Amino acid sequence: MRPDGRQEALQLRPVHIEANYLKHPEGSVLITIGDTKVICTASIEERVPPFMRGEGKGWITAEYSMLPRATDTRNIRESSKGKVTGRTMEIQRLIGRALRAIVDLKAIGERTIWIDCDVIQADGGTRTASITGAFVALAFAMNKLSETKKLASFPITDFLAATSVGIVPEHGAVLDLNYTEDSSALVDMNVVMTGKGEFVELQGTGEESTFSYSQLQQLLDAAQKGITDLIQFQKETLGDIALKIEAHKG
Amino acid sequence: MRPDGRQEALQLRPVHIEANYLKHPEGSVLITIGDTKVICTASIEERVPPFMRGEGKGWITAEYSMLPRATDTRNIRESSKGKVTGRTMEIQRLIGRALRAIVDLKAIGERTIWIDCDVIQADGGTRTASITGAFVALAFAMNKLSETKKLASFPITDFLAATSVGIVPEHGAVLDLNYTEDSSALVDMNVVMTGKGEFVELQGTGEESTFSYSQLQQLLDAAQKGITDLIQFQKETLGDIALKIEAHKG
Amino acid sequence: MRPDGRQEALQLRPVHIEANYLKHPEGSVLITIGDTKVICTASIEERVPPFMRGEGKGWITAEYSMLPRATDTRNIRESSKGKVTGRTMEIQRLIGRALRAIVDLKAIGERTIWIDCDVIQADGGTRTASITGAFVALAFAMNKLSETKKLASFPITDFLAATSVGIVPEHGAVLDLNYTEDSSALVDMNVVMTGKGEFVELQGTGEESTFSYSQLQQLLDAAQKGITDLIQFQKETLGDIALKIEAHKG
Amino acid sequence: MRPDGRQEALQLRPVHIEANYLKHPEGSVLITIGDTKVICTASIEERVPPFMRGEGKGWITAEYSMLPRATDTRNIRESSKGKVTGRTMEIQRLIGRALRAIVDLKAIGERTIWIDCDVIQADGGTRTASITGAFVALAFAMNKLSETKKLASFPITDFLAATSVGIVPEHGAVLDLNYTEDSSALVDMNVVMTGKGEFVELQGTGEESTFSYSQLQQLLDAAQKGITDLIQFQKETLGDIALKIEAHKG
Amino acid sequence: MRPDGRQEALQLRPVHIEANYLKHPEGSVLITIGDTKVICTASIEERVPPFMRGEGKGWITAEYSMLPRATDTRNIRESSKGKVTGRTMEIQRLIGRALRAIVDLKAIGERTIWIDCDVIQADGGTRTASITGAFVALAFAMNKLSETKKLASFPITDFLAATSVGIVPEHGAVLDLNYTEDSSALVDMNVVMTGKGEFVELQGTGEESTFSYSQLQQLLDAAQKGITDLIQFQKETLGDIALKIEAHKG
Amino acid sequence: MRPDGRQEALQLRPVHIEANYLKHPEGSVLITIGDTKVICTASIEERVPPFMRGEGKGWITAEYSMLPRATDTRNIRESSKGKVTGRTMEIQRLIGRALRAIVDLKAIGERTIWIDCDVIQADGGTRTASITGAFVALAFAMNKLSETKKLASFPITDFLAATSVGIVPEHGAVLDLNYTEDSSALVDMNVVMTGKGEFVELQGTGEESTFSYSQLQQLLDAAQKGITDLIQFQKETLGDIALKIEAHKG
Repeated sequence: MRPDGRQEALQLRPVHIEANYLKHPEGSVLITIGDTKVICTASIEERVPPFMRGEGKGWITAEYSMLPRATDTRNIRESSKGKVTGRTMEIQRLIGRALRAIVDLKAIGERTIWIDCDVIQADGGTRTASITGAFVALAFAMNKLSETKKLASFPITDFLAATSVGIVPEHGAVLDLNYTEDSSALVDMNVVMTGKGEFVELQGTGEESTFSYSQLQQLLDAAQKGITDLIQFQKETLGDIALKIEAHKG
Repeated sequence: MRPDGRQEALQLRPVHIEANYLKHPEGSVLITIGDTKVICTASIEERVPPFMRGEGKGWITAEYSMLPRATDTRNIRESSKGKVTGRTMEIQRLIGRALRAIVDLKAIGERTIWIDCDVIQADGGTRTASITGAFVALAFAMNKLSETKKLASFPITDFLAATSVGIVPEHGAVLDLNYTEDSSALVDMNVVMTGKGEFVELQGTGEESTFSYSQLQQLLDAAQKGITDLIQFQKETLGDIALKIEAHKG
Repeated sequence: MRPDGRQEALQLRPVHIEANYLKHPEGSVLITIGDTKVICTASIEERVPPFMRGEGKGWITAEYSMLPRATDTRNIRESSKGKVTGRTMEIQRLIGRALRAIVDLKAIGERTIWIDCDVIQADGGTRTASITGAFVALAFAMNKLSETKKLASFPITDFLAATSVGIVPEHGAVLDLNYTEDSSALVDMNVVMTGKGEFVELQGTGEESTFSYSQLQQLLDAAQKGITDLIQFQKETLGDIALKIEAHKG
Repeated sequence: MRPDGRQEALQLRPVHIEANYLKHPEGSVLITIGDTKVICTASIEERVPPFMRGEGKGWITAEYSMLPRATDTRNIRESSKGKVTGRTMEIQRLIGRALRAIVDLKAIGERTIWIDCDVIQADGGTRTASITGAFVALAFAMNKLSETKKLASFPITDFLAATSVGIVPEHGAVLDLNYTEDSSALVDMNVVMTGKGEFVELQGTGEESTFSYSQLQQLLDAAQKGITDLIQFQKETLGDIALKIEAHKG
Repeated sequence: MRPDGRQEALQLRPVHIEANYLKHPEGSVLITIGDTKVICTASIEERVPPFMRGEGKGWITAEYSMLPRATDTRNIRESSKGKVTGRTMEIQRLIGRALRAIVDLKAIGERTIWIDCDVIQADGGTRTASITGAFVALAFAMNKLSETKKLASFPITDFLAATSVGIVPEHGAVLDLNYTEDSSALVDMNVVMTGKGEFVELQGTGEESTFSYSQLQQLLDAAQKGITDLIQFQKETLGDIALKIEAHKG
Repeated sequence: MRPDGRQEALQLRPVHIEANYLKHPEGSVLITIGDTKVICTASIEERVPPFMRGEGKGWITAEYSMLPRATDTRNIRESSKGKVTGRTMEIQRLIGRALRAIVDLKAIGERTIWIDCDVIQADGGTRTASITGAFVALAFAMNKLSETKKLASFPITDFLAATSVGIVPEHGAVLDLNYTEDSSALVDMNVVMTGKGEFVELQGTGEESTFSYSQLQQLLDAAQKGITDLIQFQKETLGDIALKIEAHKG
């Protein structure tokens, strides 16, 4: 049995995605995966960064943060430190890159979509929960945009979700590690995949450890299983919007 | 009738305080006042800042922040800017100062209480909602501390709440302004009071305007009414802990 | 008797305002109140900040600083720290807001008035001395502007001065606290008022203490007395320019 | 044929590793891979960071930078910007993590090894060249340390090298992309492996694109081929020190 | 005739040094040279920087700043910019280095002397006026220290003053350039000398120009003349303290 | 005999200037003087800073940095500190100013020349080696510019080199101090001169010491000897380009 009571190595924690969680943003969700909770919002700005002006296409950029007491001991705010840590930068670059893979940037025109992922409570897997939730917030915002601005086509080309997998002592490859499992894992891998089952990002690391080709294969199988399940939750939350994405994905 | 449908000038918006909102902090609430929502947490650190060491008493300090999309248009994160704005500093100094007025710092020993107020959604009155919610989070944390550490006495000496009042065109003095009212107010005043009805902080400003002595009196009456009501909500949330405070307040 | 030898609770320290203290600024004074000395300058810039362009009105903004050795022990420069403290930000926002209340921003056209208050020597009341001195520097600069640029009307609409009042042990409400009194005060209040006797700003705080309604009334009476006296000193320094303000105030 | 004239998809560019390039560091090399040139140094500090004191083991940390004119157009220095970019942080975290996987941190005692990778000239693959070169500089420094400090065992447990692989239009999977290839690649993957052929890090990304399981397999095969070759160059540079590593690797 | 009416090329502007200008610092002056005015203070801290502890000697360090409106157009504060400019750093390093040349650092024990030079009004020669004024503030502070702490010997070993000289079109070598002259000078040189006539610092620069050996000799002669005069002003301000320095200088 | 084995007080260390060291910059060298090695590059940007636009002339600016392990003990990177030190600022201002003295800024048109001096290995005299090497890199870049852009005239008006001289115990005035000599020098002077033997910059300092007029003369003679030799090395590296400079110098 796993530390939080799960019976299966390839079992996700309970997942819940609350749609339209906030009143101001164009798209927003509160995603809950076990005890990890992230507010994801998508905001539309009617211009692109200077280096992209005049190219006739849009941009997606992401920011990630944790409340100081999202964790067991309080963290100093990055605004108080006066700088963003390397970990935060790595995560926000990952989120932005992943989402850009399933958006037709030409279809959204010269607009910037700002994705904000704010971790309210952390128990492992905050970056992958952020991607999975941000995809839904983005889909809501793109739906609103396509309804008000008469875009040439619906800009989202496929579903996208992410999960963590790892090798833990005794259990081998497990899916969706909570904080306790993550702390003891020998190998830790984050995988981002599309609805069609293609990879978007693969980041595996064996800090103070290494892993073999066959372990890699087990990890990828676990990830594929989890992502298929997560996309099912996304579809339920999105309702009719999911059909538009399906139509586009073809 | 007021912009959000309230019938009375001296009426609060609907208030809700959700206790123990997060699993990690020693005390936490989600306070909702109209469309303003703030997560308030209280964290206990087992040491005081260097300048206070050896004095045998504790310290309370506060930090305040808004999610980028708590507001109608997205704000740049202070961590991205690399510095905290003047407005944020002013608010967090106010929250800390106010709470220190109703805590017996000797009773908590050489510990720092970190108050974090993170605005999830903003519609006016975020700083006063932060104080009102932070008081409850602090009371939960102090109760936990007094139960585990055998303090000499319960460290909270009275209730504390805050509200905003203002002079708006046509209506005169009104209580608990939402964002629309706040934007058109001629005079804006934040008042922090105790359960005994004493002032802790009074900050009135007439930007590009001024106010008379009699207007000041109307504003103070409105504030007193609102704070009495807010303390009632605090008592309901705190249950038995409220009785300990009452006992101390004497 | 008070620590600096004053006989009366409602007595100001000796006040002196030296006009045109520096040769470069459009307006400048050295204001001396007891042992507190502040250089106040007003500089005119022929444009407004980006967010105000095209609105046909001006802006007033203030900066405040202390020499490192204005105080009893040397303070680290904010330029060496690389950031401005919360206290400084609070003060410079207060100064700017207060002055904007008695200036007709339309009358000055699309210009920015920069107010700089540099404390040369500190002995309590530096923020209120800054406001009182800055008003005079501003009046000189506005007079020069109105003479050279043919403004539609004289842009200053009333006098403005500020003082501190407080409750000190044994004496009760006192006016114009020096550093020694300020350090022991139970309640500390800064009041900004106009020549007509209206409030512009009211900031009262009882750090680790509280105050009653009747104490508030005593404090406001003390402040009114002090501000009336300070405006008399301003008029003497301004000479004919005071008449222009009187005429405008009507 | 590839843009720089290579005939084979799985061919490295010319590799040269100049040992002991600088006189001050405990270990240093100039690694040249095609037109990419990086100075890698290893410096030994006789203490660990505060969070590790008393644990009886060492730490390895890395910093990475580019000369402003290492690239075709001049980049602004990070010291002038006042902050390190997200890309730099990502790279230096990767280098440190990778090297820690093949060092016995207990064997080096409470010391910090600082790895500095400074790119003198860039033509693609700077992060993987940095890892490959840093391994050699580290090995020289560890050899010097083991000779002067009588360590319990030689602290390096295996060889380590890194390379980039990618999917480029027309050619499919290719090894060791130069800048031109990197700019047009559909998928870009960095792989870090040990002398035993185990993975240490795997970072694959399909910005604005995705990749399939079978493409992943081709990429991993290409990486394995390249890393085997790179480790051969390391062995030639290290001479007798390579034998110590072989002995340890067992 | 020179732009400010001086008749002679080797003539100083009017010099005035007001002793004990501020009440808090151990030593302070307001030095006025023509329209250049600088407040110089010397503060004694009872410890040295970490890198000097245990060496049994003291340290002198200097900071320099200008009020925003010391100049004809307003400068942005360095505290607002968040960093100190290169020019400021250069000047404060020069001031500290120069003063250390005439102080017996062993005699002052493990103390730091902080020199602060704040330019109230600028009209050329602010760095040399700062050195000349700072010497006097330092001498007052050292006298106070030697009286209260029973030092082994008086710590100042000679007088020290500084001036600027330059080559201006039409006049050739001139002494003590004001801002107008400085702006048109072909060569600009700052010279710091002792009471014995030895050089401490020599900084000559011909921006977009060059100078010959014979021009250098003329400049040095001019500087020597000016410094002799400035030291005379210092002696008059210092009174009996000057005798102690003379005695030490021997 | 000197610490590095030189027999003569007025002898330079071995000098080598490797032309076109890097492939991307318009001009680049690796200059080696004894054990001091600096990469100097010149980059051409097709615009000037905002404050110079429309004046029809160019600008030259310089940046200087050291690799962390250029020195005997590792230095923290300025990018990690988040700010550039005073020493670095002083040096980069010096390099830029010196080079501007021998360039006809009108001839280069509205372009900025960025000079980057990166010290790979340091053993004293890094700032003067930077100037001497930067001159050669600049000359290569100006030659390329004059060939591709048909400038009205060759923009370099004379040769320029720099060296350090100093007074060391026992030897008196010496030329080109290495780190050991520099650390024990009583007086340290950096001199920048042109091919015609005129001074461009002279910076002499006697930290905790002073120097006489006759010592100054010895130092200047030593500098002149060294600079003559250094210009000879520049000419050999530049080949035909040296002739163009000679022609211009006339």
